[in-house]
Amino acid sequence: MPNFQTVRGMRDILGEEAQTFTYIMSKARETAELYGYKEVITPVVEPIELLSAKSGEEIRQRMFIFKDLGERTVALRPEFTASIARLATSALKNEPKPLRLFSVGSVYRYDEPQRGRYREFWQSNFELIGSNKPEADAEIILLTNSLMKTVGLHGYAFKIGHIGVIRGILSKENVDDKTQNAILQHMDKKEYEGAFKLAPTDKCRNKLEGLLQLKRNDCFETVENIKSYVADYEKAKVAAENLSDVLKLIVESGCPVQVVEPAFARGLEYYTGMIFEVYIPELDIALGGGGRYDRLIEMFGGESTPAVGAAHGIDRVALALQMQKTTLACKSGKRVLVLSVNDSLKGEALKIAQQLRISGIIVEFEIMGRKMAKALEDADKRKADFAVIVGERELKERAVVLRNLAKRQQHIVSIKELAEKINS
Amino acid sequence: MPNFQTVRGMRDILGEEAQTFTYIMSKARETAELYGYKEVITPVVEPIELLSAKSGEEIRQRMFIFKDLGERTVALRPEFTASIARLATSALKNEPKPLRLFSVGSVYRYDEPQRGRYREFWQSNFELIGSNKPEADAEIILLTNSLMKTVGLHGYAFKIGHIGVIRGILSKENVDDKTQNAILQHMDKKEYEGAFKLAPTDKCRNKLEGLLQLKRNDCFETVENIKSYVADYEKAKVAAENLSDVLKLIVESGCPVQVVEPAFARGLEYYTGMIFEVYIPELDIALGGGGRYDRLIEMFGGESTPAVGAAHGIDRVALALQMQKTTLACKSGKRVLVLSVNDSLKGEALKIAQQLRISGIIVEFEIMGRKMAKALEDADKRKADFAVIVGERELKERAVVLRNLAKRQQHIVSIKELAEKINS
Repeated sequence: MPNFQTVRGMRDILGEEAQTFTYIMSKARETAELYGYKEVITPVVEPIELLSAKSGEEIRQRMFIFKDLGERTVALRPEFTASIARLATSALKNEPKPLRLFSVGSVYRYDEPQRGRYREFWQSNFELIGSNKPEADAEIILLTNSLMKTVGLHGYAFKIGHIGVIRGILSKENVDDKTQNAILQHMDKKEYEGAFKLAPTDKCRNKLEGLLQLKRNDCFETVENIKSYVADYEKAKVAAENLSDVLKLIVESGCPVQVVEPAFARGLEYYTGMIFEVYIPELDIALGGGGRYDRLIEMFGGESTPAVGAAHGIDRVALALQMQKTTLACKSGKRVLVLSVNDSLKGEALKIAQQLRISGIIVEFEIMGRKMAKALEDADKRKADFAVIVGERELKERAVVLRNLAKRQQHIVSIKELAEKINS
Repeated sequence: MPNFQTVRGMRDILGEEAQTFTYIMSKARETAELYGYKEVITPVVEPIELLSAKSGEEIRQRMFIFKDLGERTVALRPEFTASIARLATSALKNEPKPLRLFSVGSVYRYDEPQRGRYREFWQSNFELIGSNKPEADAEIILLTNSLMKTVGLHGYAFKIGHIGVIRGILSKENVDDKTQNAILQHMDKKEYEGAFKLAPTDKCRNKLEGLLQLKRNDCFETVENIKSYVADYEKAKVAAENLSDVLKLIVESGCPVQVVEPAFARGLEYYTGMIFEVYIPELDIALGGGGRYDRLIEMFGGESTPAVGAAHGIDRVALALQMQKTTLACKSGKRVLVLSVNDSLKGEALKIAQQLRISGIIVEFEIMGRKMAKALEDADKRKADFAVIVGERELKERAVVLRNLAKRQQHIVSIKELAEKINS
C-alpha cells in the first residue's frame, strides 16, 4: 500500500487557505511593483557551496542536502538571499545600482514542526542593493508596512534595533567575532543569561545587561537612551545615530507603531546594521523581518556593496489573517452552472459557457450527465448564483433559460444579453 | 571560492522572462477560476512511495531522490498528478464530484538539458475528477485552448488521439500489458519500427502499421477512417466513437485547429482514453498536453473514479511567446522617481511616495544620496515617466515640482492633484 501522507513537516494547502496564500503572494508582487522591484526566479535546488557561503552554522545543519544523479552535492534553499547574492555578483553585476529585486517561493528547513512552522514554507523576499543611506533601510521597512497593510492585517507593530549597538560594545571590549556571534545568537533567543555568561569581563557583562533597561514606551526616547548609554563606544554610538535616522524617516512617512529594542539581535550572522521584525499581538512569531548586511556581496566574491533586505513568511501572514478573521479583498465573478436539456445541445451549451467566461463569469459546465433536477440541486449546494439552461425551443430564438438559484425564479434571456443580466 | 553557477540543468529567470513567467502563471490562475477550478498547493518534496505508485519506469529513473535527516526516502515531484491523486483519495475523498483542481509550480526531472527543457521547470496542472463523459474531456481541451488564447499565442493547434484505439487492437491480438506499454512508448517517440517489431503476429503488426495511413486533413474524416478501420475490434471501435464525440464538442464550441493522430501515444503509462497535445508551428515540443486516466484514483487505493487532466509547460509557453514576439497584455502604472532637494525633507518625500503608490503609481525613491542632476539622469536611463522633486519653497504651498522626463518640462503641482496629473 503506498504512503498517502505528506513528508513529515510538509503539508497540502487546500481550499480557502490556498486562496489566501495566492492572495498574499499576488499582493507581495503588487507591492513590489509599486516600489520598483523586479522579480527574479531562482532555483529551489542550489549548489551546497553557494548556500554554505553565508548561512550561519545553525541553518547549515538544518538544510535538506543530497547528491543529484551527477554526484553534485546540492541542497534545497533555506532562504533566498544566497541566490540573490549570486545574481548580484554575476548576471546582474554590471547593472546600475540600486538593484531592487524580489522573489516569491518556497524555502526548506529541517526544523521541528510546530504551529506556523513547517519544513517547506513560503516567503516573499526583497533585496535593495547598492545604498548605505538610512532611506534605503526605511524603504525596506515601509515596503513591509505596505504589504502588511495591503493584505488586510491590522494592529501589527515593528520591532526595530541595530546590530551595531551590541557589536560596537563587544568590539571595544575586545570580544572576538566567534564569541560575538554566539552572544548574538543567545540574545536572539532571549537567552540573556547564556549571552551574558560569554562576556569576557564584568565591565562588558554589565554593559550588555544595562541594554535591557533602556527601553521606553516612546521609541525616540529609547533611541536617545541608547545614544547616551553608548556615548563612550564610538561604533555603537554611530549605530544608534543611524537607527535614529531610520526611525525618524519611517515615523515621518506614517508607518504605524514601532518598538525600539536595544538588546534586539537576529539569528543570521551576517547582519551589519538596522534589523527589524513585524508582529501582530495575536501571534508570538514574527510575520517577517530583515535588516542591513553590508558585507554580504563581498562574501560572494563581489565588490564591497551595501545592501538591505527583508523576507516575509507567507504561511505566517496567512495564519495571522485567519486569526484576525480578515475577509480577503478578492474580487470574484458571479458563479454559474451551464447545462443543456439534451446531448445534442451540448456543443451549443459549451459555446455559451465560453462566451460567459470571456465576460468574467465563473462557469461550471455540467459534465456529469446528470438529470436537470439533480444538476440544479448540486449547483445550489455549491452556492452558484445562476443556472443557464440551454433548451431546443429557446435556442431557436437565440435565447436560454436563466435561473436565479437563490430566488428560485427563472426567465428567458437572449444569449446576447446573458452576460450582462448575470453580472447586473 | 564558492560556486556561483546554478546546478546543471537549472537556471535563474530574470528580467522580462521572469515577468513573462509570472504573467503566464497568473493567466493560468485566472483561466482556472473562470472554469470553476480550485487551487491546491502540494509539497515539492514527496514520499518516494507516492511518486512511484503511478509514474512509468522512465520517469522513476529520472527523479531527484534522496533521504531527509529523518532517513525518509523522498523525491522532488516530477509532476503534480500523484499529489493530486493523494488528495482525491484522502483529504478530498468525500467532496462531491466532480472535483476541479489546479496547481501551479515547479517540477523536477533529471533529463539531458536542451532548449526548452530544464531539470527544474514550471507547470500549470489541471485535474477534473469524477466524470467519464466526453464533455469532461472536452472541458480539459477547451480550458487549454482558453489558456493558450488568453496568454496571447496564435496559430497553435491541438493534436488529439485516443489511447484506446491502439490498446483495443493490442488487447484483441492478445498482447500483454507490459508489451503494450513498450509499444506505446516507442510510438510516443515516433519510433514506429521499434514499436512494430514488438507485435507478436504479422496480423497485429500490419494492423498497427495501417494506423499511420488513416490521417486526413479533415479531422472528422480521419475519425471516420479510424472507426471503419477498427470495425472488428470492439474496444478500439468504442474508443474511436468516444474520440468522435469529444471532437464534435470541441469543434462545435469554437476551439480552433485540430489534428487527429490515429497512431498518437503519450509516454505516461496510465492514460486510458483521449489524449492530446498542443503545439505552435514555430516549436517542435508540445506546450502542454494531457488526457484521460480512469484508473489513476484506483492506483492510489481509492474507489474506481474516472478522471481527465492536463499540464502546461510554463517555460515552453514563455519560449513560444518569445518566438512569436508577443507583447504581454500586462497593465503597468506610470513610473516615477521621487527625490527631495535636501535631507531634512526626506520624510515628507517618503510620505508623498506612499500616496502615489496607493494611486497605483510605481515609485522609485532616491536612496543613493545622489545630487539632483545625477539622480534625474539615472531616472531618465531607467525610462521613468516623471520625477517628483520635493523642495522647501513648494512644500510650504503643499506643492512639488513635477518634471516630465521625456519632454524635459516641469511644473509646480499641488500634492493633492499630483497622482491625477501623473496618471492623466
